[in-house]
Amino acid sequence: MSKKIAIYPGSFDPITFGHVNIIERGLKIFDEIIVAIAVNSAKQTVLTLEERLELLKQVLNEKDHVSIDSFTDKLLIEYARSKGAHIIIRGLRTVSDYEYEFQMAQANRSMAQDIDTLFMMTESRYSHISSTLIKEIVRYGGSCEGLLDPRVEKTLKEKL
Amino acid sequence: MSKKIAIYPGSFDPITFGHVNIIERGLKIFDEIIVAIAVNSAKQTVLTLEERLELLKQVLNEKDHVSIDSFTDKLLIEYARSKGAHIIIRGLRTVSDYEYEFQMAQANRSMAQDIDTLFMMTESRYSHISSTLIKEIVRYGGSCEGLLDPRVEKTLKEKL
Amino acid sequence: MSKKIAIYPGSFDPITFGHVNIIERGLKIFDEIIVAIAVNSAKQTVLTLEERLELLKQVLNEKDHVSIDSFTDKLLIEYARSKGAHIIIRGLRTVSDYEYEFQMAQANRSMAQDIDTLFMMTESRYSHISSTLIKEIVRYGGSCEGLLDPRVEKTLKEKL
Amino acid sequence: MSKKIAIYPGSFDPITFGHVNIIERGLKIFDEIIVAIAVNSAKQTVLTLEERLELLKQVLNEKDHVSIDSFTDKLLIEYARSKGAHIIIRGLRTVSDYEYEFQMAQANRSMAQDIDTLFMMTESRYSHISSTLIKEIVRYGGSCEGLLDPRVEKTLKEKL
Amino acid sequence: MSKKIAIYPGSFDPITFGHVNIIERGLKIFDEIIVAIAVNSAKQTVLTLEERLELLKQVLNEKDHVSIDSFTDKLLIEYARSKGAHIIIRGLRTVSDYEYEFQMAQANRSMAQDIDTLFMMTESRYSHISSTLIKEIVRYGGSCEGLLDPRVEKTLKEKL
Amino acid sequence: MSKKIAIYPGSFDPITFGHVNIIERGLKIFDEIIVAIAVNSAKQTVLTLEERLELLKQVLNEKDHVSIDSFTDKLLIEYARSKGAHIIIRGLRTVSDYEYEFQMAQANRSMAQDIDTLFMMTESRYSHISSTLIKEIVRYGGSCEGLLDPRVEKTLKEKL
Repeated sequence: MSKKIAIYPGSFDPITFGHVNIIERGLKIFDEIIVAIAVNSAKQTVLTLEERLELLKQVLNEKDHVSIDSFTDKLLIEYARSKGAHIIIRGLRTVSDYEYEFQMAQANRSMAQDIDTLFMMTESRYSHISSTLIKEIVRYGGSCEGLLDPRVEKTLKEKL
Repeated sequence: MSKKIAIYPGSFDPITFGHVNIIERGLKIFDEIIVAIAVNSAKQTVLTLEERLELLKQVLNEKDHVSIDSFTDKLLIEYARSKGAHIIIRGLRTVSDYEYEFQMAQANRSMAQDIDTLFMMTESRYSHISSTLIKEIVRYGGSCEGLLDPRVEKTLKEKL
Repeated sequence: MSKKIAIYPGSFDPITFGHVNIIERGLKIFDEIIVAIAVNSAKQTVLTLEERLELLKQVLNEKDHVSIDSFTDKLLIEYARSKGAHIIIRGLRTVSDYEYEFQMAQANRSMAQDIDTLFMMTESRYSHISSTLIKEIVRYGGSCEGLLDPRVEKTLKEKL
Repeated sequence: MSKKIAIYPGSFDPITFGHVNIIERGLKIFDEIIVAIAVNSAKQTVLTLEERLELLKQVLNEKDHVSIDSFTDKLLIEYARSKGAHIIIRGLRTVSDYEYEFQMAQANRSMAQDIDTLFMMTESRYSHISSTLIKEIVRYGGSCEGLLDPRVEKTLKEKL
Repeated sequence: MSKKIAIYPGSFDPITFGHVNIIERGLKIFDEIIVAIAVNSAKQTVLTLEERLELLKQVLNEKDHVSIDSFTDKLLIEYARSKGAHIIIRGLRTVSDYEYEFQMAQANRSMAQDIDTLFMMTESRYSHISSTLIKEIVRYGGSCEGLLDPRVEKTLKEKL
Repeated sequence: MSKKIAIYPGSFDPITFGHVNIIERGLKIFDEIIVAIAVNSAKQTVLTLEERLELLKQVLNEKDHVSIDSFTDKLLIEYARSKGAHIIIRGLRTVSDYEYEFQMAQANRSMAQDIDTLFMMTESRYSHISSTLIKEIVRYGGSCEGLLDPRVEKTLKEKL
């Protein structure tokens, strides 16, 4: 069969150990994973695209079969097609996640029958981590040991 | 990379077009899918194991890379290992589904780090179909056109 | 326009003030409400069909434009059609209710485009009442004042 | 009985086929439906009130018993009363919808016992459409065939 | 202030490390915890009441301020009152748990204004454990290390 | 045992009768409750911190064992520790509340094993009140009788 390429899209503002765990598990299933920062020019992030790309490189750079990319103001399915990818991976935590993700997956599927979304559950030790929560912890001086790569935590602290 | 074998477990009492849709989409992603009837000797079903296996064969028999099997009173992860499969596929519809499935996926993962569960969303045209609902419709004389293979509907009608 | 007849189906085992509240609010919207006990011969109830019909009559008998009926082992949409009703009313309380009811409403709609389901929210003072909970309270000797008509409570006590 | 007038409120930014489906089904139940744009001066929309009113007129203008209106910075129940309407219609899709809508319905009911809210489930083929999602699809150049009236899609494209 | 006695009710069929964790955290908050097996004579359990009481004693017997008890076919609020307890503790995991527990808490509160229910979240490492799931794992020969006390696992294995 | 001090944090923009009900019930369980306004300098509120503190004082000032405080841009667990409090109280209404609160409680617990969160269910008569909804009602000229202390309603009206 042809090579199985999966896109793992997100804003990665910043990348957490929850994301890394999904990528590592995905590598056992797919031939290649493209970790892609989806840039929506209407949304604000704490880290710039360059900072986020740099942190992805640092955190993921020893992994084979992982590439890092970004796309701006474009439909995810168009981006996936341009990369020859037919699979989108998403991690799920809460029920609220689930509903939003399902709407997106159904909308994407109605637009692109050749692309499908696969969901992985977040492991329970990471289920309370979200990028939003982590930014709040760092902003108020809390520790993110076990949740963030030290280089990510350092960069985030400098920005907040 | 090694061959990607996925288990698609269920009671299939009976198989619906919702199940078939998940299998067809899974075939685009995995090298082989084992559709496996999980028999729990403590739970009652309308169709016997033999009837369910026979219907799976009839409905799925033209598909390459699909095999049909069953396992009885055994942990799913043990069964998967015995087949050399490292992936479990599950379809999701409602939030209630989701919670149960996530608990199972987390329990399986805590017992077997080498096996992972991937979830696919049910397409919206099948999201209201459950095997339970279908049995009720057939029992009361309703039509399952578009939801069930005619051979499945016929067998089910004879039993109910 | 033609007369608006709505079916309010349920097992009414027993009827609670939560049900009565839905019926009273429904009467402001529809020309006639048929309160219909849906009998599923495979399911057990505490009260017999005759007892449930009798209690419905006692509790609802002063209301105009309400009739009481039952149907057995039949699809709800078939029953509705036989009565010339195009509307099904359902009360909703919890998210779990909601998911089940939506699946049923979608299934009914896929079978009968001429019949639609309308949902009313349960008023907050009744949102913790379910027929199941009430049977448990009565069984263990608790009081159902404000939740049940005294005649219903008396009948239920005698049975439990 | 008196004429049954229902309000179908929303921001309609823009109107989708999901909305039109609710209106068409509502017309089988109520004598008249007032489709009312609720303007909250503190919230931003992509389309102006005038554009939204114009699109409602174009999309709905062949329908009898439908009128189009708007109200600004006013409680929905006050608006309903001023129109002689005792019914509010709302479409429901996800569990998140449901919770918000139920809070609103309970709050409205506690303020106005003469007005009630009826919920209709969104048909499954429209359950993944939201005005928010549609704006994202249009912004990024995707197609909304089957989700939006072509005139709505055209206007939206010009604005985004 | 008076002594704070809390009831921690459940079927404990069997007690898991998830339950033990709630009890240990509760002991930091309340002066005394009564772990009470609620026996519903209409419901079947795998372990007898005697076996469940014995396992509670073994697992909890070194803890101060914990007592073990049971009550049969009685309302929880009546039992709490008979013990001079004004607090009920419940652990929560899933959304489905939450809805059921809230209905019960509201019903209990409407019957007994002097008794209140406090909820504790299950720690994430235990969030996938339920007594039901554990019985399934043990029945099929899986290991419950880290989820069950070895004595509980042994007793359960002998029964299943 | 040592004194049981609980923190009841919130933005209290403004305090509602739902909050007051939680505080009154909490006073039956804990020796002291610190009602603490959590100020996040990045978030906007309708009322200033001074106005919110003043309203808390007016509404709660006859209650023993209640103190009023605020903390700014600080982690809740750090604030709790600085006060010698080991308990955080949170009221729960909807499933959406629940998910957010559970994530926060798990995150707090992973950072501070000495502090625990206890949840109380909102009584059904207050379950539709949120500070957000109340601000909308007041802004549009509705009445908040039974939901807000008259002094709170007056202050809010002057601001909106």
